[in-house]
Amino acid sequence: MNASPPMYDVVGKRLNRLDGAGKVTGAAVYASDFSLPGMLHGRILRSPHPHAKIMRLDATAARKLPGVRAIVTGASQKLNRFGNFIKDFEVFATDRVYHIGQAIAGVAADSEYAAEQALKAIEVEYEPLPAVFDAIDALAQDAALVHPEWQNLKAAPIINRDGNRCGRTVIKFGDVEQGFRDSYRVYEHVFRTSPVHAGYTEPRVAVAQWSGPDQATVWCNAPLLFDTQSALAEIFGLPASHIRVVVPGIGGGFGGKLRLGMEHYAMALARAAKRPVRVMSTSEEELTAALFRQPATIELKTGVDREGRIVAKKGRIVVDSGACSGSGPLVASTATMILAGPYRIPNAEIEGVAVYTNNHPNGSVRAPSGPMPNFATESQMDMIAEDLGLDPLEIRMRNILREGDIAVNGQKMTSVGLAECLEKAAACIDWSQRKPEQSRGKGLACGWWMTSRGSSGAYLKLMQDGTLTMMVGVVEMGTGALTGAAQVVAEEMGMQLFDINVVSADSLTTPYDFGSQGSRTMFAVANASREAARDLLTKMRTRAAKALGADEGALEMREKAFWNGEKKITFAELAAQANAAVGGLIAEATYIAPAVEHGAARVQNHFSPSWPSPSFHVHATDVSVDEVLGEVTINRYVVAQDVGYAINPTYLEGQLEGGAVQGVGQALFEEIIMVNGQVQNGNLTDYKMPTSMDVPPIEVILVTHPSVAGPYGAKGVGEPPSIQPPAAVANAVAAACGKRIMQLPITAEKILMD
Amino acid sequence: MNASPPMYDVVGKRLNRLDGAGKVTGAAVYASDFSLPGMLHGRILRSPHPHAKIMRLDATAARKLPGVRAIVTGASQKLNRFGNFIKDFEVFATDRVYHIGQAIAGVAADSEYAAEQALKAIEVEYEPLPAVFDAIDALAQDAALVHPEWQNLKAAPIINRDGNRCGRTVIKFGDVEQGFRDSYRVYEHVFRTSPVHAGYTEPRVAVAQWSGPDQATVWCNAPLLFDTQSALAEIFGLPASHIRVVVPGIGGGFGGKLRLGMEHYAMALARAAKRPVRVMSTSEEELTAALFRQPATIELKTGVDREGRIVAKKGRIVVDSGACSGSGPLVASTATMILAGPYRIPNAEIEGVAVYTNNHPNGSVRAPSGPMPNFATESQMDMIAEDLGLDPLEIRMRNILREGDIAVNGQKMTSVGLAECLEKAAACIDWSQRKPEQSRGKGLACGWWMTSRGSSGAYLKLMQDGTLTMMVGVVEMGTGALTGAAQVVAEEMGMQLFDINVVSADSLTTPYDFGSQGSRTMFAVANASREAARDLLTKMRTRAAKALGADEGALEMREKAFWNGEKKITFAELAAQANAAVGGLIAEATYIAPAVEHGAARVQNHFSPSWPSPSFHVHATDVSVDEVLGEVTINRYVVAQDVGYAINPTYLEGQLEGGAVQGVGQALFEEIIMVNGQVQNGNLTDYKMPTSMDVPPIEVILVTHPSVAGPYGAKGVGEPPSIQPPAAVANAVAAACGKRIMQLPITAEKILMD
Repeated sequence: MNASPPMYDVVGKRLNRLDGAGKVTGAAVYASDFSLPGMLHGRILRSPHPHAKIMRLDATAARKLPGVRAIVTGASQKLNRFGNFIKDFEVFATDRVYHIGQAIAGVAADSEYAAEQALKAIEVEYEPLPAVFDAIDALAQDAALVHPEWQNLKAAPIINRDGNRCGRTVIKFGDVEQGFRDSYRVYEHVFRTSPVHAGYTEPRVAVAQWSGPDQATVWCNAPLLFDTQSALAEIFGLPASHIRVVVPGIGGGFGGKLRLGMEHYAMALARAAKRPVRVMSTSEEELTAALFRQPATIELKTGVDREGRIVAKKGRIVVDSGACSGSGPLVASTATMILAGPYRIPNAEIEGVAVYTNNHPNGSVRAPSGPMPNFATESQMDMIAEDLGLDPLEIRMRNILREGDIAVNGQKMTSVGLAECLEKAAACIDWSQRKPEQSRGKGLACGWWMTSRGSSGAYLKLMQDGTLTMMVGVVEMGTGALTGAAQVVAEEMGMQLFDINVVSADSLTTPYDFGSQGSRTMFAVANASREAARDLLTKMRTRAAKALGADEGALEMREKAFWNGEKKITFAELAAQANAAVGGLIAEATYIAPAVEHGAARVQNHFSPSWPSPSFHVHATDVSVDEVLGEVTINRYVVAQDVGYAINPTYLEGQLEGGAVQGVGQALFEEIIMVNGQVQNGNLTDYKMPTSMDVPPIEVILVTHPSVAGPYGAKGVGEPPSIQPPAAVANAVAAACGKRIMQLPITAEKILMD
Repeated sequence: MNASPPMYDVVGKRLNRLDGAGKVTGAAVYASDFSLPGMLHGRILRSPHPHAKIMRLDATAARKLPGVRAIVTGASQKLNRFGNFIKDFEVFATDRVYHIGQAIAGVAADSEYAAEQALKAIEVEYEPLPAVFDAIDALAQDAALVHPEWQNLKAAPIINRDGNRCGRTVIKFGDVEQGFRDSYRVYEHVFRTSPVHAGYTEPRVAVAQWSGPDQATVWCNAPLLFDTQSALAEIFGLPASHIRVVVPGIGGGFGGKLRLGMEHYAMALARAAKRPVRVMSTSEEELTAALFRQPATIELKTGVDREGRIVAKKGRIVVDSGACSGSGPLVASTATMILAGPYRIPNAEIEGVAVYTNNHPNGSVRAPSGPMPNFATESQMDMIAEDLGLDPLEIRMRNILREGDIAVNGQKMTSVGLAECLEKAAACIDWSQRKPEQSRGKGLACGWWMTSRGSSGAYLKLMQDGTLTMMVGVVEMGTGALTGAAQVVAEEMGMQLFDINVVSADSLTTPYDFGSQGSRTMFAVANASREAARDLLTKMRTRAAKALGADEGALEMREKAFWNGEKKITFAELAAQANAAVGGLIAEATYIAPAVEHGAARVQNHFSPSWPSPSFHVHATDVSVDEVLGEVTINRYVVAQDVGYAINPTYLEGQLEGGAVQGVGQALFEEIIMVNGQVQNGNLTDYKMPTSMDVPPIEVILVTHPSVAGPYGAKGVGEPPSIQPPAAVANAVAAACGKRIMQLPITAEKILMD
C-alpha cells in the first residue's frame, strides 16, 4: 500500500532547515564554542595499564606548577559510581584501574598547556594485574575477573549477570533442535566485527560552573539532557534539579555522546577550583578513550527447507562491553532482534550476551545493535542462497515479514514496506544483471529497526507577532529533526515554517524528553508538539469566535487568521488582545509511544521486546574488486527505506545518505585496532574514515507505508541506514570475486589472503 | 471582617527568599554584570539645547579616533518613532531636538574611554528654537508647540490630544456646581510637586547582539519584557519574535525602568558595529536623562457639609510629561482616582491632564499617579478639618468608603480594610496625644490603590527528583514577589519552598506576562501558577492512583507522595516513571484579573476606570520641626496597609518599609531641580535621597481583608507605601509648627520663609 498522500502546505515539502543559516554562515554556536569569564581548562590523567593496582599517587609536585588551580583524584572527592545499567564506572580511579585510558586524576589550570604540564608531573606507581582482552575468553570459567567485586555493584533488575558476563537476553520459541532436524540443510557460521568510532566532528566537551555548594550548571554536547542530569546527580549525590544541563549546540553525535563525556570531570574540577572549568577531549583522547561501537562475535546456525524458507534459527551474539558495561547490555539485547532479522521464523533460540573485558569501555554508535548481527544474518542469507542456487533477492522475498505476520518477538506486523524496498532497490541497481563483468558484482541486504519509545513534552506560546515559540527538551543533532517537528506544528497551525521559533535542550526550562536517540526525535517531538498545537488552536478558535461574534464552527482558518466571511482576526491580533486582556495563549502536551503487544513468553531480560513503529530497509550496491590489489570500489549504492512518510524529504535523504556512508566506513575501512587493551591507530591517519572519494553519490528511494503512531505516518529514520552497508558490501564483494568475508572490515588483506 | 485565617504549611510563613543566598553572597548576577566576548562599549551624545534645529552633524573626525567601531545618528539608520501611547520618541534626533539630554548620536568603541573621546569629537551646530518649560504655560493657546507636527504623530485612540496637551481624562457625575452651592463651606487650593528620580541602585543597561540581519537578543534590566520586545520590534521594523529580551537580573527599578532605557541604543550600535555592544547609563545620565516622576500642579476645590462630609469635589491635576508623552497620559488618567480619594463623593468633576514641555521626558516611578494627587487631597482634608475644628482622623472616618459603597468610578466596593487601617495606625501612633510637645505634631493620610490587570502565564514541570520548575515571564524586581508566588505553588503541591525552581524573564522561553508593574506581580503570577499546579496535581493523582491500584479519591497527599494506606508513590518516583514510560508531567495556565463593573458613563478617556482588588492604606507620623533651622525630624512612622493576606509577611513588610522611606524622600528631600529644561542638581550630593539616618524604623501594621481575586486573598502591595508619605509628613509638619506646605518637597526654606 503506497497511496499518494494528501497534499499539505508545509509538511512533505523540501524546506530549508531552521538552523541552516547559522550553519552555513558560521554563526551557529556549538558546545565547544561556549566559554565563561574566568574559566579554567581541565585535562585528565589516564591509566597506561589495562589492569593494575594503584600503589602510589602523588600530585604534590604538580600542584606547585604555575597556573595549576586544582587537582582532583579518586581520594580527594567522594564521587559515587555510575553507569546506565550497572554502577561500574568510577569518575576517577580509587585503588585500581581496569582499562587503559581510565581517568586517574583531573587538573584545572589557567591554560590547556599548564594543565598538560601538571598531568606529566603527577607521580603514579602501578602493580599490574592479570587482564582479559577477548570477550569469548572472558566468558571462560577461569578467566580473570574484570570486576572481582561484581556482585557488590548495583545493577538494574533486568541485567542478567555472572562474573564477566554483564548482560544476557534470550528470545526462544518453538523447538529449534527439532527444526534443525526437519531442515533440508543447516548452515553454521561465525562472524566477527571490530570496534569503530562514532565519527562526530566536534569533540566531547563540558563547561561546569557551581553557583553554590550544591548547585551547578553544565554546558555540554550531551544529546540526552535528562539522562545526563540524572547521572550527574547520582555521582555528586545531589537532587537532579540542582544540576542544570544546557546544550548550546552539538557538532554531531551519532550515538557516541549518549553517555557521560566530560561533564563529570568538569563538575568535579569546577567544584575543587571554585571557578568555571572547561574540559574538552583532545583528538587523541577521542580515538583512544571514547565510547566505541562494541566489537562482536556472532555464531549463527540456520536450517532451511528445499525452497530456502527458514525452518529454525539459533544464534548468539557476544558483544565486548569493555571494562564497564555502558551500553553493552542494551546493545546485546536489542541485537537479538536484528540477528533474527525481518523474517518469518517458526523456531528460534537467539541469545545476546554482553561481556566485560579489560578493553576501553564501549558505548553506542548509530544503530548500536545493528550492523554486527545484520552483517552475520544477511551474509549468511546470501551464502544459503548460493548453496541452494537461489537468487539472493528471491530467497529474501520468500522469507520476509509481511503485514499480519508474527515476528520473532511475537508482535503482529502492520505497515511493512519491506517487499517494496526490495523490489525498488533491486530495480534501481539493475538486479537482473547481477554480474555485469569480471571482478564486479552486486549485493543486497535487508533489515528492520524500531522507533524508540520514551516520552517527549512540548510547550507552545503564541507570540505578539502571530508566530509561535515551541519549547522541547531535545537537542538538534544536525539531522533536521526539529525542523521536521516544526513543519508539523506549522502545518497544524496554518503557519509557515519560519513562524516557528524552536527552543530546545535546557534541562531546567524545557519539558522532559527521552532525548535525541533511537531514531525517535522528530517522531516523538512532532507528536507532542502537534498535540499541543491542537490544544492551542482550540483556545485560539474559542477566542476568535468571541471576538468575531461568530460560531466557532463557522470560522475558517487561513493566512494566520480566523475568518468569519469577510471579517477576520489575525493570530497577531489574537495574541496581542489575549496578552493584554484575556490571558496569554499557551499550551502544552506530552507524547508517549503507545504500547505494542508482543509475545512476552518468548523473551527473557529483553530491553526492547516490542518494536514500536518499525521501519524496513534494503541496501543494494554494485562493487568492483581489484583482484591484484584487493581494493574495493563502490560503483553504485542504493538505499531503499520505508520511512512511513517524508515530512521533509531533503533532510530525510540526507540521513539516508550519511548513514550509508558511515556504514560503508564500517564495511570497508574503519576499525579501532586494539592490542592488549591498547589502541594502535589512535589518529585520523591510521583510523580511516571514508571520504567523498571513497563513496559515489548515494541513490535514495523513499518508500512510504505510513505508521499508525507517527506524525503524518512517519517512522524513525536516523539509525537504520548505517546497519546494512557491511552486509550489502560483503555480499557484493562475494559476488564480484567469490571471496566471502567473515570479519569486518573488508580490507584488501582479507580479500587477498586465503 | 478580619477572621483569623486558616493555617497553611508554606504560605503565610516568614521563609527566606529563593534568591536570598545569591544576594547576600554577591553571587547574584545583574544585567549590569552581563558581558559577551568581543563586546564593545556604547555611549550616547546628548543635546545641550531644550529646543533647537540641528544645522550640521559631522562625525568624520570622531570616526577616525582609535578604538571607534561604529557611530550611529538619526541619518545613518532608519529607525521608527516609538512611545507607549504616542509615537513621539526618536531613538536619535533627526532634524530637531526638543529637550536637553535628547540622544543625537551613539558611539560604539573598544572601551568606555574611547567612546567618550569620540562623543567629544562629534561636531554639531544648533539653531535654538522657542521653548516652554512650565506645564500650565504650555497649555496656553499661544504657547510654543513642543511637537508642531503633533497631529501627524500616531497615537492610541484613548489619547485625547490638543497641541501641547497629550492626554486628558475626566471623571464626572452628579452636579458639582450645585454641590458647591449646597455646601456649608467650599475650600479651594493649589498644590505643586516636583520631579523625583526612581532611585534604583543599578543604572539602566543593555547588551545587544544580532545573530543575523533581522534577529537580535538584548540582555537588559527591563521589568516589562514583552513591552520592551514590542517597542524594539516597532523601532527596528521587525516581527517581535525576532527580538529576544532576557533579563539576567535587576538591581531595583521602582518603575523607573518600565520604559525603554538603553536597549534601542545598544541594538542600533550593535547592528552598525556587527559586534555585541553594551550601553550603560552613567551616574550623570541617570540624574539628568532618566525618566523621572512627573511634576504636577493640582487644583482642588471641595465642598463639605457642617459635619465635614464631602458634598462636591472638583479637581484638576496637570502633569508635565516633558518633551515626549511617555507614561504621562496614563499617570494623569489614573491620578483622577487618587485625587478623588477613597471617599464617598456625591458630585464630582475631576480632570487629569498630561502636557508636553521642553523638559526631559518623564516616566513612571512607584505608584506613578499616587503621591502628587494624594498630597493635595490629604493635605486639604486636614485643612478642612482644622477649619471646621474636627479631628483629622474623625473627618476621614466620616467620609471613607466602606464595603458596599459606590466609589467615584461607579464601582461597588468589596473588602475595604480602610477603617481598620485608620484605627490601627492612629492607635499605634497614640493619636489621642496629637500634640505631645511644642514644635512636635502628628499627621496622617489615607489612600487607595489598585492591583493592576494584565495577564500572566505559567509553565510547570515536575522534575525527576520530585521538585518543580516554574516558568514565568516576569522579572523578580527585588520585592520577593517570585518567592511569594513559589510559596503559593509549594502550598498547593504539598512541597517545600525550596522545591520550587523559578525560571523567569526570557521573552523567548517564558510565557507572556504583563510584567513587573502595577503591584500585580506576585498576585497575578501566583494565581497563574496555582492554576497550573492544580492541573498538574490532577494529572499526578490520576497516575498515582493507577500505580497504586487505588481510587483517586482514596489517595492522601503528604510528604511529596501519594498514599493509599501504607503504600505510597513519591513525586520523584511518579516523575521518573512518567518520564520513562507514561509521559512527562507538565502543565500550564494563564491568569487574567476578572473584570470589575464600573460606571462607564462617569469616565472619559480613562486608562483604568475599574479598580481590581483595591488596597487601602494609612500612614501616620510623629515629627518635630526645628523652628530655627527649619529641619524636620521624623520621630515615628507608622504604615497600616490592607494587604488582603500576607503570603510572606517578611517581604511584605520590607515593601512597606522601603516604600515609606522612598515616600519620605519625596516628602522632605528629593527634587530634580530644573531651570529652563536643564537639571541643576545632577549628582547624588545635590540630589538628596534619605539615608538610614533620616528615617526611624518604620512600624508596619498588616491589615488583612481578603480580596476575592487574589491568591489566598492577597492584594497588590508594592506601590502604595510610597503614596502617602508627602501628605502624612505635611500634615504632621502643619500640626507641629502651624506651617502648611503647598509644594513638595517640604524643605527648611519653605518652612522658614513667609
